[in-house]
Amino acid sequence: VTGGLCWINGRLGGTLDPRDRGLTLGDGVFDTLVAFNRVPFAADLHLQRLRDQAHSIGIEVDTAAVQEGWHAVLRESSAARLILRTTVTRGPSGRALRPDSAAQPTLIVAGATWDPRVLGAPAKLATSAITRNPGSPSSRIKSLGYLDHVLAAREAAARGADDALMLTPSGAVACTTIANVFAISDGRLVTPPLSDAAQPGIMRHLVLQAAEPAGLSAEERRLEPADLLAADQLFLTNSVRFLCPCVWLDGTLLPQRGQDRMKPLLAAICGQVVEQCGTDPRLREAA
Amino acid sequence: VTGGLCWINGRLGGTLDPRDRGLTLGDGVFDTLVAFNRVPFAADLHLQRLRDQAHSIGIEVDTAAVQEGWHAVLRESSAARLILRTTVTRGPSGRALRPDSAAQPTLIVAGATWDPRVLGAPAKLATSAITRNPGSPSSRIKSLGYLDHVLAAREAAARGADDALMLTPSGAVACTTIANVFAISDGRLVTPPLSDAAQPGIMRHLVLQAAEPAGLSAEERRLEPADLLAADQLFLTNSVRFLCPCVWLDGTLLPQRGQDRMKPLLAAICGQVVEQCGTDPRLREAA
Repeated sequence: VTGGLCWINGRLGGTLDPRDRGLTLGDGVFDTLVAFNRVPFAADLHLQRLRDQAHSIGIEVDTAAVQEGWHAVLRESSAARLILRTTVTRGPSGRALRPDSAAQPTLIVAGATWDPRVLGAPAKLATSAITRNPGSPSSRIKSLGYLDHVLAAREAAARGADDALMLTPSGAVACTTIANVFAISDGRLVTPPLSDAAQPGIMRHLVLQAAEPAGLSAEERRLEPADLLAADQLFLTNSVRFLCPCVWLDGTLLPQRGQDRMKPLLAAICGQVVEQCGTDPRLREAA
Repeated sequence: VTGGLCWINGRLGGTLDPRDRGLTLGDGVFDTLVAFNRVPFAADLHLQRLRDQAHSIGIEVDTAAVQEGWHAVLRESSAARLILRTTVTRGPSGRALRPDSAAQPTLIVAGATWDPRVLGAPAKLATSAITRNPGSPSSRIKSLGYLDHVLAAREAAARGADDALMLTPSGAVACTTIANVFAISDGRLVTPPLSDAAQPGIMRHLVLQAAEPAGLSAEERRLEPADLLAADQLFLTNSVRFLCPCVWLDGTLLPQRGQDRMKPLLAAICGQVVEQCGTDPRLREAA
């Protein structure tokens, strides 16, 4: 269908048992990263999060096997810059919610070409009526149950937006369907805490780390939609798109007064890519 | 793994494309029913709900193909009483949340032997701290994202219970991980409304229909845990277990004062099975 490469449990081109609990129950977690020059960026952070999140739901991940999957896909691909999606499920089992003790995890790595035009692409947001639930453990991890996000993204597209802003039932900003949300105001960088059902993004983590050296005081704090409208600059982060200015929210054009404050954050993270992978992701052509 | 039969897109024993959105995004719905004497019980209601729920997320289901899958599994199975789980996904696609327009739905039917001992089995419940979100469309349908329920079921087992009672963030009773909740008090039958994130169970529907002829006034109304403790009788419903008395809630033994009021409800539904399938599910051996 996509022509992308896929590796399952040690084999390129494998298929999935339809009784896999990843399909039948959404019983698993995933991770997405980009490999530049065939080197996965921020690999350690991604591996650690994947292992920790899987462990939190009782699945033990063999991180050496994950790396083996990444490298099998990278070796096979003709693209020098590749999105790697890693999926870990509890494996096939009978129909009970409680897994068979014999269930063996399924490990999948899928590759797709990374398009450099997504880096920093400006985004329009529409606020969704679909909420993210802080009382749901699956909303605190990158679990497989993304249907609410699929529906919110569809609704946003119908309203002329690129992505949906998702709130909690109490009206706090959580994140978008695919990204974390940051607001810059008066030299302060603010993003919602994980307790407001924000996704624990790796790019979010890197941006928070880069703030102080870039002269911004960083804070995890509850944000409401009005705070977003009042900010000097709103931007989104994820591991594929890096930092993307948000230009429009529910029909309101947003000020772009903090572009100069975003630039050192993006530069710091691109510097880490250069260090780890030997190429700058801002280059339109692969090195 | 389970020895169960599985039919995918017209073929017994097929495998799944690992890029299927059912796996990668939980982008699909499912249904579970029991076939007695190789005849699916309440087939029309199950087909209609599956088609309506899939349609609500933009997937069109070919109900003739679903029936073909059921019958393929029923023909192949040696068991006269079979649980049929039907799964419909949006099919394989690339990695965007918005589906490829070319995506073709995947249809899976899996069979597993029905054990008559589950019918009416008494249940102990432990209230979960994991909540169900009424602001989530995926909580209003039988979507594939069941990880919260998997975790709640695990937590309940650790506390000596058979199942977890799930509330909404505002403290209303929603349902359990696998069943709807009913309370009988003074000739009134009460179950939470769908707007309190209750699953739209087919057995729930049949029980509500059977109430009036059985001399009970039925009502969909908000319930809180205290209402459950105060009821004459608490019971659970699902399409596999029918009506199960609830005997224990968070360490408190529950009164079983409404057993005689449950019996005509169960009898009415078993009568429908006899009518449609020619056998009584209360018989320990298949007819």
